[in-house]
Amino acid sequence: MPSTSARQSVPTLAPAASLVFTTLLSHGPLTRSEVGRRTGLSPAAVTKAVRPLMELGYLVEGVDEGTRPGVGRPANPVRVDAGRALFIGIKVTGDEIIAVLADLCCRIRTTRNVPLSGREPEAVLPRVAALVRELLREAVGLGVRVRGLGIAISGDVDRADGVVRYSPFLEWRDVPLAQLAGTATGLPVTVDNDVRALTVAEHWFGAGVGLSDFALVTVGAGIGCGLVVHGEVVSGAHGVAGEIGHLSLDPHGPLCHCGNRGCVEAIAADPALLRAVRAATGRAVAGAAEALELARGGDPAVRAVYARAGAAIGKAIGSLVNLLGPERVIISGEGLAAYDLFAEGIRDAFATSAFGTAAECDVMTRALSFEDWARGAAATAIQSFMGSHTYEER
Amino acid sequence: MPSTSARQSVPTLAPAASLVFTTLLSHGPLTRSEVGRRTGLSPAAVTKAVRPLMELGYLVEGVDEGTRPGVGRPANPVRVDAGRALFIGIKVTGDEIIAVLADLCCRIRTTRNVPLSGREPEAVLPRVAALVRELLREAVGLGVRVRGLGIAISGDVDRADGVVRYSPFLEWRDVPLAQLAGTATGLPVTVDNDVRALTVAEHWFGAGVGLSDFALVTVGAGIGCGLVVHGEVVSGAHGVAGEIGHLSLDPHGPLCHCGNRGCVEAIAADPALLRAVRAATGRAVAGAAEALELARGGDPAVRAVYARAGAAIGKAIGSLVNLLGPERVIISGEGLAAYDLFAEGIRDAFATSAFGTAAECDVMTRALSFEDWARGAAATAIQSFMGSHTYEER
Repeated sequence: MPSTSARQSVPTLAPAASLVFTTLLSHGPLTRSEVGRRTGLSPAAVTKAVRPLMELGYLVEGVDEGTRPGVGRPANPVRVDAGRALFIGIKVTGDEIIAVLADLCCRIRTTRNVPLSGREPEAVLPRVAALVRELLREAVGLGVRVRGLGIAISGDVDRADGVVRYSPFLEWRDVPLAQLAGTATGLPVTVDNDVRALTVAEHWFGAGVGLSDFALVTVGAGIGCGLVVHGEVVSGAHGVAGEIGHLSLDPHGPLCHCGNRGCVEAIAADPALLRAVRAATGRAVAGAAEALELARGGDPAVRAVYARAGAAIGKAIGSLVNLLGPERVIISGEGLAAYDLFAEGIRDAFATSAFGTAAECDVMTRALSFEDWARGAAATAIQSFMGSHTYEER
Repeated sequence: MPSTSARQSVPTLAPAASLVFTTLLSHGPLTRSEVGRRTGLSPAAVTKAVRPLMELGYLVEGVDEGTRPGVGRPANPVRVDAGRALFIGIKVTGDEIIAVLADLCCRIRTTRNVPLSGREPEAVLPRVAALVRELLREAVGLGVRVRGLGIAISGDVDRADGVVRYSPFLEWRDVPLAQLAGTATGLPVTVDNDVRALTVAEHWFGAGVGLSDFALVTVGAGIGCGLVVHGEVVSGAHGVAGEIGHLSLDPHGPLCHCGNRGCVEAIAADPALLRAVRAATGRAVAGAAEALELARGGDPAVRAVYARAGAAIGKAIGSLVNLLGPERVIISGEGLAAYDLFAEGIRDAFATSAFGTAAECDVMTRALSFEDWARGAAATAIQSFMGSHTYEER
């Protein structure tokens, strides 16, 4: 088990420039002094960080109508120039591909999606390439260059190497996706775990804005987790992080696809719920919608399945909060559709397992669409693009 | 459950100065260019960070015998001036108080310990004050001022507020220890969770040197954990973090003092082991030493108790690694005395629960004495002291 200390090398901006850029993305336009106040940087450090970003055209001074230039020193606000560059973000689910064309402020300009006919890389890649070609044509129409492609995949993804190590959903192992997609599209490609990518977008624009420590827990086909600690997304020294779905809660619990028993994912993810509902009712329940219908119809055995799932999620969140003490936990994912059935179980199990003041953590839900996940992928492409420049202070 | 985003305010150095100071503590003496290489800071940024630290006398230029000043620009190494300030570090266990007098390089100059007669604050504080007075007299003899006192306590400790929220061992709740000890000793006081304090020392001088992400798991009277993520110790938005001991592994497991069942601490900490050994043998086993003797004598029921404990620890480490993906996990604590009995259980359970490449994490053991824990407390006092200065760039 060798230790590889050089692996935290996901490209990022120089600290001060990164802080200024993302602060302006999240809160802009801001005056330089507001940037200083929000980042804790000195006026000199703000000026030094802003200058190269303005020279490159990523930041511009906003026209403040009420200020007459030349009268004193105008406190013109600075903002990100959204139209300076475009990015494509792609989320691959088990069933479809969702692609967005986003500007430098990560605002979505266009969305496209296509169903998947097969899950093997040979089936997925041509569809990705075709979607990218479509969006590149859109970009030509807008007269702005596309500077990067982000692809978000569930599972164990090594962003630094651009390799999907293992994606249980797609049944991919060691797919050098960044290289393959780069060859197919001609764009610089960033590949990241889908929940981590969504976490970047939540940090910049969502319920994580202004927080240095939060967790995003996604419930649905799987149970995922993105973590921000000390202001940065945790990506794991070996590419694995946020695997809350494989917290093992019960040695006699249901068997998980990972080989262990009683994992959160084996109790609370969609396939596990469906199996448990079928077992509890003896019916050939077809899918999540039918299971939900039975529960809402009042079937106590089915409601108990959802309650158990809620308790598993709540216990997992309690464990996470005991370990990391985040300011907030955001629960999202397709599974939110059943949140009314989960809620009590989550709340009670969290309260029981949180240790001491950890219980003060703010646990909230937030609906996010697959388009938001694709936007997360675009956010990782923006990260990589901004990180590919070198700045004076580094 | 309100979110309090302003609570990450444990005093720290300005980023660059902090990085330079701790780099020199861990690796010094170094030339400025070596500092630049190790920190990734530009020559200008190194110069800017070093200057005020030299003006304050915390850094000095080492005399490089082979270099003649004036011939070219001498590449004099810079180092921390160990003798510039002294600090006192105190670790309070359930049975005794261990105190060290440490210099600015956190090297131990003197150690003292006294047994505890009672665990209530009224019994502990006068002993702490008496030990501090002794060490202050030593410092007078050395002709150097003591600039701070660090106290390390197990449990839920709020460093920012200086309050011990809850220490199960000492049975303390909401004790404003920093204020009480400050009044009793006249020193600036830093109070921190004991495992977090030890983690600071491991990061600066131990098995965590040069790592940006590692975990320290301590096994003994309790099961604790200190985390370094993105180069900084995790202290939790609400003061709780690293509570790996309350990961719940089995809903039908033994009852834990926290009220839940099957916590790691209820299976693998000393009191739990002792209870299980008594139950397995029907004997009134007096303590850990006797239990160990029975296990080493080959009693299969006792060996099984240790094996189960090892498996619980290994599973907890697997969960931690799946969530955070650290480069290394260091196992320490008094419980290491039984490591031969735990080892196989830890190894197997870790391998089974680690997800994908997370299994590549370097899991190692390291013997650390209570003196090392007290040194950790001194390290937190050094952190606070250095953080109490303001530097130009902040």
